[in-house]
Amino acid sequence: MISTSTTRVLAAELPLRIGDRVTVQGWLHRGRPLKSVVFLVLRDRSGLAQAVFTEPEAMAAASGHPEETVLSVTGTVTANPQAPGGVELTSPEVVALSGPAEAPPFDLYRPGVPATLPTVLDHAPVTLRHPLLRAPHVISAASVAGFRAALDGLGFTEIHTPKVVASATESGANVFAIDWFGTPSYLAQSPQFFKQAMVGVFERVYETGPVFRAEPHDTARHLAQYTSLDAELGFVGDHRDVMAVLREVLAGMTETVARQAGQECALLDVTLPEVPERIPEIHFSRAQELIAAGTGEDPRGEPDLAPAHERWLSEWALREHGSEFLFVTGYPMVKRPFYTHPEPGRPEYSNSFDLLFRGLELVTGGQRLHRYEDYLAALAARGESARPYEGYLSAFRHGMPPHGGFALGLERWTARLTGADNIRRATLFPRDLHRLTP
Amino acid sequence: MISTSTTRVLAAELPLRIGDRVTVQGWLHRGRPLKSVVFLVLRDRSGLAQAVFTEPEAMAAASGHPEETVLSVTGTVTANPQAPGGVELTSPEVVALSGPAEAPPFDLYRPGVPATLPTVLDHAPVTLRHPLLRAPHVISAASVAGFRAALDGLGFTEIHTPKVVASATESGANVFAIDWFGTPSYLAQSPQFFKQAMVGVFERVYETGPVFRAEPHDTARHLAQYTSLDAELGFVGDHRDVMAVLREVLAGMTETVARQAGQECALLDVTLPEVPERIPEIHFSRAQELIAAGTGEDPRGEPDLAPAHERWLSEWALREHGSEFLFVTGYPMVKRPFYTHPEPGRPEYSNSFDLLFRGLELVTGGQRLHRYEDYLAALAARGESARPYEGYLSAFRHGMPPHGGFALGLERWTARLTGADNIRRATLFPRDLHRLTP
Repeated sequence: MISTSTTRVLAAELPLRIGDRVTVQGWLHRGRPLKSVVFLVLRDRSGLAQAVFTEPEAMAAASGHPEETVLSVTGTVTANPQAPGGVELTSPEVVALSGPAEAPPFDLYRPGVPATLPTVLDHAPVTLRHPLLRAPHVISAASVAGFRAALDGLGFTEIHTPKVVASATESGANVFAIDWFGTPSYLAQSPQFFKQAMVGVFERVYETGPVFRAEPHDTARHLAQYTSLDAELGFVGDHRDVMAVLREVLAGMTETVARQAGQECALLDVTLPEVPERIPEIHFSRAQELIAAGTGEDPRGEPDLAPAHERWLSEWALREHGSEFLFVTGYPMVKRPFYTHPEPGRPEYSNSFDLLFRGLELVTGGQRLHRYEDYLAALAARGESARPYEGYLSAFRHGMPPHGGFALGLERWTARLTGADNIRRATLFPRDLHRLTP
Repeated sequence: MISTSTTRVLAAELPLRIGDRVTVQGWLHRGRPLKSVVFLVLRDRSGLAQAVFTEPEAMAAASGHPEETVLSVTGTVTANPQAPGGVELTSPEVVALSGPAEAPPFDLYRPGVPATLPTVLDHAPVTLRHPLLRAPHVISAASVAGFRAALDGLGFTEIHTPKVVASATESGANVFAIDWFGTPSYLAQSPQFFKQAMVGVFERVYETGPVFRAEPHDTARHLAQYTSLDAELGFVGDHRDVMAVLREVLAGMTETVARQAGQECALLDVTLPEVPERIPEIHFSRAQELIAAGTGEDPRGEPDLAPAHERWLSEWALREHGSEFLFVTGYPMVKRPFYTHPEPGRPEYSNSFDLLFRGLELVTGGQRLHRYEDYLAALAARGESARPYEGYLSAFRHGMPPHGGFALGLERWTARLTGADNIRRATLFPRDLHRLTP
């Protein structure tokens, strides 16, 4: 059993302990010294608890602590409909465990956050204590738990793969260089090679880990390090089997957020999406026709969707199918990586997909090539030498099943879900073109 | 629901389907073409399945596939006590999904592994398919699941922190340098700063992610990238509250391995340790006395334990307490990082611990300083300037509770548990002084 030196009770547990004398520990969220009474509101990981000091000696002991002082308060749990949670601590005694050396950049007890994003990020260790700024990260943790639980239930195995690689697999640009004991190497842009190779060992694998993109631009939706939720599975018919697994994953993530982060969703006014039994899908070529007919702009001939057209398609899916999710399938091969499986019968298109969620591309995935000779042909067709890919290709020299997978950016998901104006609000300590601290 | 193009059945499910005509898909583990019968043994993620071909036409179709060919076999499930799992597929039809371009470096179907470790690692995408080489990684995945489940149950929040930092927190040496958009930076040696800072936000946090040590030596127990299972919690009395949480974590890991990887433990002849309700503990100073009395060598005055003495202490704990785990507490401050909390009343010792498991240090942890002024004093006492630690210290300027935590090396745990002679056998794609591929 876990023993702690004091038998501490969490704020959220107080309503069950009316009449008991208990100890609550947390940060002084707000102190209100009045003439004949002092109110202290403590904040712990479960919520807020109020203590009421009325005896002159106790009032003196309770006064003078700046907000964010770490306090231990022992008192009698007493019902009071006006107090947070309907209870408060009376006849309390207070001990300061440690005091702040400095005030936060803004008052953490106020309902809003009167600070710019750079201020929030510069002072993350203290600003993230604000309930509004903390909440996305609780939702994020629940989302990852849901991702893993869904895949565990489908027979997937978790893997941990190298973040330092001898050559870039996704593309030569946008990589961070490392000096590896004197050998030039790179931070991994994705676990693509490793997860595909491990289909040969475990059939179904996932990884939840950092990936690195040396994006030289500064936007509200790009990070130089983000958490990639990757999955890959063998013995698929085509990309639709991958999409079916992704549907289960999204349902698992949403359900776990509802169960584990309901309080945070309420605080941020988050409406969780319904994940349809079958997420609507539309082929890329058909999507372009719809966009042309619906917007008056004609994107046909373009090999990718413009952000504005992704938003338009999302609205279309909501209108026509009542779904906040939409699969766009069959992206032109020319815009997909060399390992992408072409569409049988229409080799200019691919067995790939993007998942749009509330107007934004959230997931990219698809079926991959699985035959060694197909890889050689694909590289030759692109005029690329197979030599730099030798390590990558080795996995396919030994018999690989038809397979596919997807990658979901955790911070992008959380930002979209919580309606954040910037992906950095869904990242504890963002790393980007300009930010390497704290 | 998940639909696949064929309704595939796993090898392990066959005993429940006797009499049914089903499709099994997997790798040709072993083909045995005899004069009047051909046996094919398929391997999938659940185990092995045998198909028996007796009709001349079917025998011809089943012959000539090299091992590791990916096959789809449809047949009738028939009881046969001699076959793997007590069943086999009869009247089978076979389709090759993809063939190997090359034979594996050794036969994967033989019970043993007749290859050196470098061969195994050089060809990881195919050698890890061998059941003996695959098993540690299934045990590893179950271990991480157990780690998370134990901490989830204790109110911890999962975090994802930067792997690129502007300055080294653990020590100036052994860091990998990165060019971050022109700014010198480093791969993170641990999430130490971030997890401590997040105690101020979530109270109890964990992370399961990669850490990087530019260890310039090549040993059987060091890697340059490994998976660190990190936890940190606030409102502790002292390091013993951290040890109590670690005990729960070890119990959770062991139970989950037993439940999810029982087959792999049996294959590797792993005996899971019992985690005592209370893991025995011994103070560093007392441990040195015991070692002096027991071995004839006198380590007193040394600030750390030699590996041989760790082994001796482990044997002592097994002999005296019947435990394969032993906490050594109170390591001298001089060998612990600056953020370590000293032992009250004996400030030359610390409120820290190592956990020994089967003769090896597996976990390091302890109570940390939590007051800003104590950090300043600790750095001054070491003759270090506070300036390089400004970012680190910022978290402690705003009120931090007494807290502590620990870090457990996943690969070291798995290697020790499985009796591996080298930590690389518990790592899918090791990274070290000499190895950057595959």
